[in-house]
Amino acid sequence: MLKEGRVKVAVIGLGRIGLPTAAVFARAGAAVTGVDINPQVVETLQEGSCRFADEPGLQELLSDVVKRRKLVATLDLGIAVSSSQFIIICVPTPVDQTKTPDYSAVKKTSHAVGAALREGSIVIIESTVGPGTVENLIRPILEEESGLTAGQDFGLASCPERSDPGNILENLKSVPRVIGAINGQCGEAVAVLYEAVLGVSVIGVKDPKTANAVKLTENLFRDVNVALANEFALLFEKLGIDTYEVINACGTKYNFVPHYPGAGVGGPCLPSNSYYLIAEGLKTGNIPYLIRLAREINDRMPDHVVELVSEALNEVGKTVKGARIALLGVTYKPNVRDIQLSPVQKICERLEGMGARVVIYDPMLLDEEVFGHRVERCADDAVDSADCIVIGTAHPEFYQLQLRHLSRIVNGRAALVDGRNVLDPATVRDAGFAYRGVGRGTS
Amino acid sequence: MLKEGRVKVAVIGLGRIGLPTAAVFARAGAAVTGVDINPQVVETLQEGSCRFADEPGLQELLSDVVKRRKLVATLDLGIAVSSSQFIIICVPTPVDQTKTPDYSAVKKTSHAVGAALREGSIVIIESTVGPGTVENLIRPILEEESGLTAGQDFGLASCPERSDPGNILENLKSVPRVIGAINGQCGEAVAVLYEAVLGVSVIGVKDPKTANAVKLTENLFRDVNVALANEFALLFEKLGIDTYEVINACGTKYNFVPHYPGAGVGGPCLPSNSYYLIAEGLKTGNIPYLIRLAREINDRMPDHVVELVSEALNEVGKTVKGARIALLGVTYKPNVRDIQLSPVQKICERLEGMGARVVIYDPMLLDEEVFGHRVERCADDAVDSADCIVIGTAHPEFYQLQLRHLSRIVNGRAALVDGRNVLDPATVRDAGFAYRGVGRGTS
Repeated sequence: MLKEGRVKVAVIGLGRIGLPTAAVFARAGAAVTGVDINPQVVETLQEGSCRFADEPGLQELLSDVVKRRKLVATLDLGIAVSSSQFIIICVPTPVDQTKTPDYSAVKKTSHAVGAALREGSIVIIESTVGPGTVENLIRPILEEESGLTAGQDFGLASCPERSDPGNILENLKSVPRVIGAINGQCGEAVAVLYEAVLGVSVIGVKDPKTANAVKLTENLFRDVNVALANEFALLFEKLGIDTYEVINACGTKYNFVPHYPGAGVGGPCLPSNSYYLIAEGLKTGNIPYLIRLAREINDRMPDHVVELVSEALNEVGKTVKGARIALLGVTYKPNVRDIQLSPVQKICERLEGMGARVVIYDPMLLDEEVFGHRVERCADDAVDSADCIVIGTAHPEFYQLQLRHLSRIVNGRAALVDGRNVLDPATVRDAGFAYRGVGRGTS
Repeated sequence: MLKEGRVKVAVIGLGRIGLPTAAVFARAGAAVTGVDINPQVVETLQEGSCRFADEPGLQELLSDVVKRRKLVATLDLGIAVSSSQFIIICVPTPVDQTKTPDYSAVKKTSHAVGAALREGSIVIIESTVGPGTVENLIRPILEEESGLTAGQDFGLASCPERSDPGNILENLKSVPRVIGAINGQCGEAVAVLYEAVLGVSVIGVKDPKTANAVKLTENLFRDVNVALANEFALLFEKLGIDTYEVINACGTKYNFVPHYPGAGVGGPCLPSNSYYLIAEGLKTGNIPYLIRLAREINDRMPDHVVELVSEALNEVGKTVKGARIALLGVTYKPNVRDIQLSPVQKICERLEGMGARVVIYDPMLLDEEVFGHRVERCADDAVDSADCIVIGTAHPEFYQLQLRHLSRIVNGRAALVDGRNVLDPATVRDAGFAYRGVGRGTS
């Protein structure tokens, strides 16, 4: 049935998750309609163009499925929903300035989907939401708008995306999917669909809230463990102990899993996910203190990098005020063209607030405007006449920085602060820099 | 040289780590003198008897090496130290009531070792201590008592034990060892010795404090991750989500490592190790908040079990006051005969404080006196006429509990609180019990 194009799927939200998901469903033979509220996003897809050049294989796949009309794009959510058996919702769920989950896109989408929903369809939520959001927020909206009853007239399930930006097509075909549906029949239908399309195993859990809890638990595991690594780093710096030496030695114990410290945690997931769970905790009077503290530790790491910059500049007799600072790497992680909640933004803003002149280089964003700066075309242009180099993202090319060459083009004696453990401290010092690194003792 | 018995080793402290360590060094051919301050411990070893019946293979090994005079035991630390090239210190490092590291045994041992130390010997610290303790506490004592200089006249190294009680002989021959010495020559000598004796790989780190940081980091990773699991459990109980279902589903993600919630964390290591690092942090004005909070969460779990007991008894119309409570399992983990800092002690004391009559059964402690109670000889004797069963330790036999049978010998309708996820909730309820489990929603 899938191969014959008789399975009709609407994917709502053509962002970093929705777009490859739509493409992969189309490749498997489904007739897919991609929906977005942004006309430019729809137009780009209609042309078969890909907005995510950093997703390997996606451009080729999109060109193919759009050309074969397996995937079409529209602004018209109503038509897409009313003509589809499966409606997959992939809209963003950020947090606002006060760290409160912002479900406005999910709510707005649920209203629109509900208004167009036909009996027998199944709505699948891939967006990351707090446990209970599908049952207590999305379900009532869908039922009220459609006049239908979930579990009886239409299906409803959570199948949270589990992909890693920059590697999404690979993840889609290898990471098992977790499905929590409103009843067994609906769960079975969604499982069959995802297994057939993605070729991955499917883990059925009791209900949507359990599936959403799984998604948050696995991401918070990472956030908390990075925070723990950062806590060790802050302490070991003071004790003159090299955190990387410690963590790598720990890695030889059978039950230890290495996580590394750094300049902070960014991106669309980890900086927000904790707050979805904290919000649900607050409703029950049960605050996840550890998760909240971990988030605060990770959020403070950019400030620590600024402290290291100040220390390192001090060592060469300079102040942050008036210093020219070359910020190498601003994306929230290597190899993605994405500055969403990048901790490097805070580093940039704080240094400028202290009177530094910041120059940015990032190989993923050449010549673009980032944090109010035009990104330089090469590392040399950024480092030229700099008083301090700060490594904000571990892009592969930074491992090959020619330190002796750079030390000749900086402004006299300069500082280098490595926020991502990209460079060997001894080599940096040998090249003449005053070195600081997150988690590295000054001994 | 090892095989010829020309390597002379003193092992100070014949506890759960020191005793198997001494035996394994003796088996490898070293002439080992075991030293303890407790005459009974020395006498037991002299007879070739083993105090740790729960350590597989240890009794046989001790009988053999004692019979062959490869391992001798003495109270006389001075003679043992002055006649040995390697002095391995395995004395306990607990925390006191105020959670302050109690290094008194390490200090006393260091004084005694220093007074008897000969030029050319190497002192190896296996005891878990805070980073800096070897450099700033042990080294000065050894130097002052001996009149010798570390790194010049004698060697000094940390080689923290990394074994898991109940599995120590296995761990000794499989878990790599981390060695941080006072200089390269000493590190090399210790590495050669441990590689030859244990047949494991050795990771050399910069200095003793780095080795001690490794030991603490790997244990705190576990403590913090168990605390995180407990935090999820407390929240998911309120949200009606099964924490085990969540964690097991998370386990299908490539970068997630399952840790499980429970009635608390006990034993000689995890409940204390955080405080060694916190103490060092306090000295630098850098408190590891996350590690401290994790410890507090784990320390509170016994109170949560008491809450669940109260809830479950309430469901069958009973109060804790006057209830007969069968506590199944009191050791700090399965298969060890060890109640050191077992969280079950707190559960027992709190329930008794509330007026319950507690009866204890533990297959590792049959007929012994524990927490002021004589341990029953079988589960049935404990459960007979009980109003509530509490599972405190996941001993293998508890997975086979005959619930229908037990429900007939309890006092009317009874409660069952599973602190260790040993039983299937539905099966417990089907047998007629009011069920509660850590991390299990009541819905």
